[in-house]
Amino acid sequence: MPEQSPLDLAEGDPFGPHNLPYGVFSTASEPERRRLGVRIGDHVLDAGAAAHALGSPYAALLAQPSLNPLLAAGRTAWRDVRRALTAWVTVPAHRPDIEPLLHPLAEVTLHLPYEVADYVDFYASEHHATNVGRIFRPDGEPLTPNWKHLPIGYHGRSGTVVVSGTEVTRPSGQRKPPAEPTPVFGPSIKLDIEAEVGFLVGTPSTLGTPVPLADFRDHVFGLFLLNDWSARDIQAWEYVPLGPFLGKSFATSVSAWVTPLEALDAARTAPPARDFPLLPYLDDSAEDEPGGFDLHITVAINGETVAEPPFSTMYWTAAQQLAHMTVNGASLRTGDLFGSGTVSGPETHQRGSLLELTWNGQEPIELTTGKRAFLEDGDEVTFTAWAPGPDGVKVALGEVTGRITPTH
Amino acid sequence: MPEQSPLDLAEGDPFGPHNLPYGVFSTASEPERRRLGVRIGDHVLDAGAAAHALGSPYAALLAQPSLNPLLAAGRTAWRDVRRALTAWVTVPAHRPDIEPLLHPLAEVTLHLPYEVADYVDFYASEHHATNVGRIFRPDGEPLTPNWKHLPIGYHGRSGTVVVSGTEVTRPSGQRKPPAEPTPVFGPSIKLDIEAEVGFLVGTPSTLGTPVPLADFRDHVFGLFLLNDWSARDIQAWEYVPLGPFLGKSFATSVSAWVTPLEALDAARTAPPARDFPLLPYLDDSAEDEPGGFDLHITVAINGETVAEPPFSTMYWTAAQQLAHMTVNGASLRTGDLFGSGTVSGPETHQRGSLLELTWNGQEPIELTTGKRAFLEDGDEVTFTAWAPGPDGVKVALGEVTGRITPTH
Repeated sequence: MPEQSPLDLAEGDPFGPHNLPYGVFSTASEPERRRLGVRIGDHVLDAGAAAHALGSPYAALLAQPSLNPLLAAGRTAWRDVRRALTAWVTVPAHRPDIEPLLHPLAEVTLHLPYEVADYVDFYASEHHATNVGRIFRPDGEPLTPNWKHLPIGYHGRSGTVVVSGTEVTRPSGQRKPPAEPTPVFGPSIKLDIEAEVGFLVGTPSTLGTPVPLADFRDHVFGLFLLNDWSARDIQAWEYVPLGPFLGKSFATSVSAWVTPLEALDAARTAPPARDFPLLPYLDDSAEDEPGGFDLHITVAINGETVAEPPFSTMYWTAAQQLAHMTVNGASLRTGDLFGSGTVSGPETHQRGSLLELTWNGQEPIELTTGKRAFLEDGDEVTFTAWAPGPDGVKVALGEVTGRITPTH
Repeated sequence: MPEQSPLDLAEGDPFGPHNLPYGVFSTASEPERRRLGVRIGDHVLDAGAAAHALGSPYAALLAQPSLNPLLAAGRTAWRDVRRALTAWVTVPAHRPDIEPLLHPLAEVTLHLPYEVADYVDFYASEHHATNVGRIFRPDGEPLTPNWKHLPIGYHGRSGTVVVSGTEVTRPSGQRKPPAEPTPVFGPSIKLDIEAEVGFLVGTPSTLGTPVPLADFRDHVFGLFLLNDWSARDIQAWEYVPLGPFLGKSFATSVSAWVTPLEALDAARTAPPARDFPLLPYLDDSAEDEPGGFDLHITVAINGETVAEPPFSTMYWTAAQQLAHMTVNGASLRTGDLFGSGTVSGPETHQRGSLLELTWNGQEPIELTTGKRAFLEDGDEVTFTAWAPGPDGVKVALGEVTGRITPTH
């Protein structure tokens, strides 16, 4: 019986040729050599070597240690490269060239696949923002007056964006116990997760010129799962009046795999009905394509599912976030990324943070490894997701995972 | 009579050999070739060419189109390079080699001299924060409870940091007139300045490991004037609860010249007395070197002085800001910059923003070009500064200037 080809995937494999996310890998024999790769099943195809072997005009663009040159090449190149990759992994005549260039995932190291330019994080789930408002401002309106008029966001720290699998050191900082007159210092006692979707900008824009809703796909290359680790005790003490800073800046984990938007065409979905008319630059009611993505996220701690946040419930879309972020003339750079904000649905089990799942620690969740109000050292948090793909096949997003280690 | 050498400066020239700020320039004959330069008087020395001509071991580091390699080389290299430069511009025997490598400032183009990694902005003037609190929260305490316990800061947009001289397009955005039920959209009607000092990180740090107060000079290469342009109407509507975003992200102007910390040794000064004991990681009472800098800033609009903010009055020092920014384990990268926050002194004419100078537009200032509540299209804003140098000579900082152009 002949050996099975890595290209002979099980029917419905969510990392089949309809998916083809991009990453950057190295092998044990050449650990210093980073290469652009494309995931197919449980293997990664050396994209630069494949392009060279098959005489692709994009060989130089793919023989790079980072996604950035491909990101900067623009939407036509993204489409052409994806078409070529699809052919390489599906046309039987290419197998002799392609099969030797496939590496089992278990045998490679995955790296941060792009150089991060600016990192912006939004706050786009109405359910999340409402829960947070109820927890922190129990006597006031849960949503601030601006919330339904603009996608609230802020800049995060680009230099501490780390690839999935990187250990996360518990941050220390100031917190103010309610009963104390002054703050105390120490390792965070309310270390939390935020289940988010990140969007990666490829094509830059010009300073002074906004990017309209309709140009979203000309600028955004793809999306990925993101964990916006949050120290709630540090954040609560510092964030008035200028927003989150050290409560967030110690680490943001991103998946090693970027899913191109084209793989998610069947997952586009309309966002929830809007409660207020939007200003023209945010009004997506006449756009050709629905602004949402029907992504089904699973949050697991030490392998146990604790939440299943539905991305389709997000009030603000990524296209609206991009239009808002640039409406003041701020320019985009290749490698800019922006996070959706915590994804929380209307149901209790759909909440994308422990802050919400345990109601600020008051109602701990039960795991086989013990009760959790917030994260303990050694806890490993993993987000996975799938979306509807073509012909009823699922498209999986690459996981994002990270384990908490004690403060140094 | 022999031609005057550009190195024969007037006595007390604040850009003399005791100063030697770094920049990046190009010439009209080779506009695409960016070169590292050092300012001396009204000339810029081609530092790479000088190092090559004089056989310096740092020739490769200085023959670069950006300051980043020098920044990354660390404190010993910074000291050695500065010593060499000082010798090249002062020792008469070097004149035949050096003089041909001096370009009149009027004949070169200055560029952003480094690649910005992360940009953080602080809020470190007690006078500024108190004024802002009184204007926006007239019924509450002007300072939030955390203000004297930690240096409040937030991340800004790195991709829109522009070099002095770059025109600034008036941003559009949402603002909420008090009498209206919903926001309106349009060009900002409260475009403002913030007179700040920026600090430039050279030596990176390790993720998970804080940078203590005492290591400030191992990581920070120099400082420069910075204008944190602010659209007050956009900012006021958006900033609760996650802080400033589009009210700031359209542009941040920085001087083309970075002054090395060593040029400011005579300007070190103790910060104001602290009203509360500080947590150990912020307590600078036992540091060898005083944490402040005695910088005298002048703010001019269309050439008329409107304010003279004294940097010596800042409550939080740059070393405290660096220690705070990293105490949660966040790492530093070469090219990180952080702004002090608006510099305002206790006196009315020492306020570093129009928000304060005109009390949110209620008390316009009088210029020969007319009254100003906030900036008008065509206005040009320039910050200059000097500090005490060795032997009573002044050290000038490179100016930062920018002109407002109408919304596109």
